[in-house]
Amino acid sequence: MSSAAHEPAVRIGIVGFGTAGRAFVPAIHAHRGFALTAIVDPAETVRRAAVDEFGVAAYESLEALLEHADVDAIYVASPTALHRAQVLLACGARKHVLVEKPMAASLDDARAMTAAAYAAGVVLLVGHSHSYDAPVHAMRELIDGGELGRVRMVNTWCFTDWIYRPRRADELDTQQGGGVTMRQGSHQFDIIRLLCGGLARSVRARTFDWDPERSAIGAHTVFVDFADGAAATAIYNGYGHFFSTELCEGVGEWGFMSPGRPAADASTQAAGARRPRTPEEELLAKQARAKHAIPGDAPHQPHFGLTIVSCERGEIRQSPQGLIVYTDAGRTDLPLPASPSPRARVMAEFHDAICQRAAAVHDGHWGVANLEVCEAAIASSIRGRDVELKHQVALRAQR
Amino acid sequence: MSSAAHEPAVRIGIVGFGTAGRAFVPAIHAHRGFALTAIVDPAETVRRAAVDEFGVAAYESLEALLEHADVDAIYVASPTALHRAQVLLACGARKHVLVEKPMAASLDDARAMTAAAYAAGVVLLVGHSHSYDAPVHAMRELIDGGELGRVRMVNTWCFTDWIYRPRRADELDTQQGGGVTMRQGSHQFDIIRLLCGGLARSVRARTFDWDPERSAIGAHTVFVDFADGAAATAIYNGYGHFFSTELCEGVGEWGFMSPGRPAADASTQAAGARRPRTPEEELLAKQARAKHAIPGDAPHQPHFGLTIVSCERGEIRQSPQGLIVYTDAGRTDLPLPASPSPRARVMAEFHDAICQRAAAVHDGHWGVANLEVCEAAIASSIRGRDVELKHQVALRAQR
Repeated sequence: MSSAAHEPAVRIGIVGFGTAGRAFVPAIHAHRGFALTAIVDPAETVRRAAVDEFGVAAYESLEALLEHADVDAIYVASPTALHRAQVLLACGARKHVLVEKPMAASLDDARAMTAAAYAAGVVLLVGHSHSYDAPVHAMRELIDGGELGRVRMVNTWCFTDWIYRPRRADELDTQQGGGVTMRQGSHQFDIIRLLCGGLARSVRARTFDWDPERSAIGAHTVFVDFADGAAATAIYNGYGHFFSTELCEGVGEWGFMSPGRPAADASTQAAGARRPRTPEEELLAKQARAKHAIPGDAPHQPHFGLTIVSCERGEIRQSPQGLIVYTDAGRTDLPLPASPSPRARVMAEFHDAICQRAAAVHDGHWGVANLEVCEAAIASSIRGRDVELKHQVALRAQR
Repeated sequence: MSSAAHEPAVRIGIVGFGTAGRAFVPAIHAHRGFALTAIVDPAETVRRAAVDEFGVAAYESLEALLEHADVDAIYVASPTALHRAQVLLACGARKHVLVEKPMAASLDDARAMTAAAYAAGVVLLVGHSHSYDAPVHAMRELIDGGELGRVRMVNTWCFTDWIYRPRRADELDTQQGGGVTMRQGSHQFDIIRLLCGGLARSVRARTFDWDPERSAIGAHTVFVDFADGAAATAIYNGYGHFFSTELCEGVGEWGFMSPGRPAADASTQAAGARRPRTPEEELLAKQARAKHAIPGDAPHQPHFGLTIVSCERGEIRQSPQGLIVYTDAGRTDLPLPASPSPRARVMAEFHDAICQRAAAVHDGHWGVANLEVCEAAIASSIRGRDVELKHQVALRAQR
């Protein structure tokens, strides 16, 4: 293929202009291989704001966009339960597709999407997830270097207030891809699979729904067994008491300093955050938050909870500036360069795949395998036993 | 029963005067209900030192002690594989027994010991374990208070250099109760079971043996499912690269500041610690270490790795001074009084049980249940699936 400089820009439309959709605009603008052409959102206020702010065309539905706008690719950032129909529609129109995580509300949906992309000969990429974060990528490169030996254990903890942030009803409904195991586990399992090589074998888990005023899967304990003998655990607790940023020198998910839990005498705001809201209030709060929820230009590396990677000859974990590596020789700090945002990495991987410069890591098969772990965790909790996995794929070599 | 002041002291003999045995001497001396009368050790140098230092009788075997010394109780701190025979012997002589963890080299042995104590009508206590630590005890009291709601998740990480410390061969042999899952998991599972109420249901785990120059179970990832719906994970890595004291403000297992992992340029000593030793060198190093391995009078609370307890309405974890509790009201520091050593708590529990003032928590049945989790973790790793538990007991109410 010709180099990026001589290729026409990939014209892209965004379906669903909420937190995830908006967060991708800077990365799309920053990549000269893409041109943001149109957006789709059901809310007229959101459409009008997008037209004013970004000078793009705006449509009420994907069908309208496909009928009226010339695009080469679609980024599907709508509610998860809509992903299947929208991805099938986009593939049917031979558009490349980037689909937000969780990939779909069910494994069946995800597999249908992968099959449709294959049949249409288009790229299907799943992202953003925190496995795109520069420190996770650097951990994988260290592992590939071989000096640390095989990965044997990956353990990750993430404690946030996920469950009490403004939510649409579908974000709290497992059947529609809601709850922390689907929406945040999809980050954790993507990271774990990337670091352990992809071929998970079985899952044992408990999921928890312990606030009756905010019923949803709000926490989980997940054990993942890998075919090569590695094991991983993913702990998530979204009930907002303890924050794992306390274990990460205060650095949060997007690389900003996070206040963590205030002392007990400054608690008015914390308690207030738990007050039930009407669906309308939640939606308005979500729309207001969407503009600021995922800021860019962070002073630190993104830090999605605390992850310790145990290899045969050493350990790796994150620091605010990069990685810390522990070997027989001692402790070594590995600063990472102020990196392109994780979403810039998504756009680069998408573009490389579209232009056939490099096969995507986070393709449909990879996304299916991540979603299978999410579903298996929920199923294991219900059944009270191990769930074997059937749709796992190995990490594709990138060199 | 009459009060402690009017009871004659319980005369106690220690079998095995290594690290564990020696570490109990201050706690025995500090409890006026006990009188240390005799010790047993196969090494003449150790016996002679004990006679000189503590003015006790010293014997080459438990048989000799039982024949010649008047004791009411025996503390069995010998190599694990000897526990069964020695406990059966002590019970046969109608002596109360405190047995070091792991309770035995196999569940069968442990059950035989419990049965023998029951038949003889004597107390059988298992300890020390870190579940006796004051912060763990305080966590249990907070849970019993009920304000935090039910315990739902307990997650604990411990990263040390356990595998490279001086060892006898039996300490590295699973069949003899060796390796970290038996010897250090027994701490973790005791803590987890205490905090979750005792009734574990099943275990899923991977154990690891990844240094061929020091073959033993040196790390594990263990998922424990509880009958009431709680779940716990215990991660242990004894390969000495990363130290979890880094996550505990530098406080180690016995409440002392621990240096953690030195920087890569100060590594001579760290690399030297890995050099293989002859069995004789290891034994000498162990005997030298026994006098200092477990110091008393720590400036901080004992801190066996990092444990986060997630309850329905809040979280608990340790600080160097006590506990931190996270609730809707915010973060609260709960300092704990400079506490009696964990071993003083063991002696108090043993004495209360002998004098029938209070039934022991860490009795033979509790110890069997802890050991069952150890064995199940090893079995789960071999079989690659869940192992159901059959010998679990609920935590006994203490009030």
